[in-house]
Amino acid sequence: MSRESYWASDPSEVLRVGDGFRLDRVDPRSTPGFEGDKANGRLALAQGAKILSVLQEQLFANSRMGGYERRILLVLQALDTAGKGGIVKHVMGSVDPQGVALTAFKKPTPEELEHDFLWRVEGAVPEPGQIGVFDRSHYEDVLIARVRELAPPEEIERRYGAINEFEARLAASGTTIIKVMLHISADEQKARLQDRLERPEKHWKFNAGDIDERLLREHYMQAFQVAFDRTTVANAPWFVIPADRKWYARLAVQHLLIEALETLDLDWPKADFDIAEQQARLAAS
Amino acid sequence: MSRESYWASDPSEVLRVGDGFRLDRVDPRSTPGFEGDKANGRLALAQGAKILSVLQEQLFANSRMGGYERRILLVLQALDTAGKGGIVKHVMGSVDPQGVALTAFKKPTPEELEHDFLWRVEGAVPEPGQIGVFDRSHYEDVLIARVRELAPPEEIERRYGAINEFEARLAASGTTIIKVMLHISADEQKARLQDRLERPEKHWKFNAGDIDERLLREHYMQAFQVAFDRTTVANAPWFVIPADRKWYARLAVQHLLIEALETLDLDWPKADFDIAEQQARLAAS
Repeated sequence: MSRESYWASDPSEVLRVGDGFRLDRVDPRSTPGFEGDKANGRLALAQGAKILSVLQEQLFANSRMGGYERRILLVLQALDTAGKGGIVKHVMGSVDPQGVALTAFKKPTPEELEHDFLWRVEGAVPEPGQIGVFDRSHYEDVLIARVRELAPPEEIERRYGAINEFEARLAASGTTIIKVMLHISADEQKARLQDRLERPEKHWKFNAGDIDERLLREHYMQAFQVAFDRTTVANAPWFVIPADRKWYARLAVQHLLIEALETLDLDWPKADFDIAEQQARLAAS
Repeated sequence: MSRESYWASDPSEVLRVGDGFRLDRVDPRSTPGFEGDKANGRLALAQGAKILSVLQEQLFANSRMGGYERRILLVLQALDTAGKGGIVKHVMGSVDPQGVALTAFKKPTPEELEHDFLWRVEGAVPEPGQIGVFDRSHYEDVLIARVRELAPPEEIERRYGAINEFEARLAASGTTIIKVMLHISADEQKARLQDRLERPEKHWKFNAGDIDERLLREHYMQAFQVAFDRTTVANAPWFVIPADRKWYARLAVQHLLIEALETLDLDWPKADFDIAEQQARLAAS
């Protein structure tokens, strides 16, 4: 079966945040739109990897020919352990590293804190032809910043508008923006943190602060809901992806990327040289 | 059979540039040290991908725990079509993108030209825990710059010493440097350029300037030989990898990376927290 045949409905429709969206009504264990099981999901992911790889190469190829401005920006936000790293490894890992610009945003440095919150993000936006991936992003500045009160309330309020303006500018310059929240349940997060504590090869991924953050879950859910309410716009949509099943979350993100690229109606760029002339030159060389 | 069993001799020994090395004695079609065929080579590459992936994660994990400085820098130099891009895609593509810092050096920008030739390279050296990959590098400044006379002879002369000092500094700060020249024959290059001219999905990779460069092949070979003579040092060795057979070149580079990582004697970092205490906190959360 082809990967498409498992989808009863288009994931970009069923996962998209629309009017009246309520995060607390999304079941993190569900697999919206997908009718197969984990084995089907893995097969579909492998099939999709080949498709994504060709589309990415076409995007990249067009940008090499000059004057082509299209690019993709995938923003990944989530609570700890929800699987951002797995998306990067298992979805982005299937395309040519040359075409991917990955930026992991950590706690801001003193230099970054001296600038507006968008400053470090501006410096990381993808070039034409690239798929940019933000592992965390400017949304940290209205998520953890809101929950932990890292900035005054009026500054947090200001940021939603600033984000919308920033993303509108990116969209206008040829960027397809895909904003993803990976939605994990409290129980599944507990199980994954337990796993990190039990397995020595995972200890390095554990941080005592993750439990502190976990205790603030409801505050984070509220901050996400506000972010969805304030920053969901046509050219920069949010998608909430149930992430208790890793295979589903990876497949859904891959599907969103494939669909975004298909919308660009890509083809191999036409030669900007005389083929017969170059063949003659090459033969004589 | 395991990947090791196909190697009759250690590729890092047979491919390393040593005293009295002569580039014109290397056969680009040979497969030094490897006793298998293409099918064996592909199998060995797939086996090596898993090994490389774990080692890379261990390197990355150690760097997250603080105070760990080790990192890898792979420098790729070659004539056009020799397969640098394929190395990036098929060797580096098997490890987690989060741990790889890839930089493709193009023709210098006006801003870059205002600075010393090492300026742009300094800005791209890998962080602790990363595998840095230079697709072209500071060696362009003693290769094309020498062949095309883009700088005065005394400036070119100065650069060899500057490179050695720069790389000695990198090595002293914990960087394992692997410098690779992919060595392709004139005939194989012609065939690959023909292929790019024949297949519409490859036209974007063709550049009329590639044929101009091709006509200067002997000058480039001399410039490479001088670079080997002047910049081969213990902590920054050169490896010349026959590249007419893509599968061999990929396997050889993968092997060099695996060996470099194995030399670091990596293991999963020890937990810097009390495991039982955190398990109790998690259980109560």
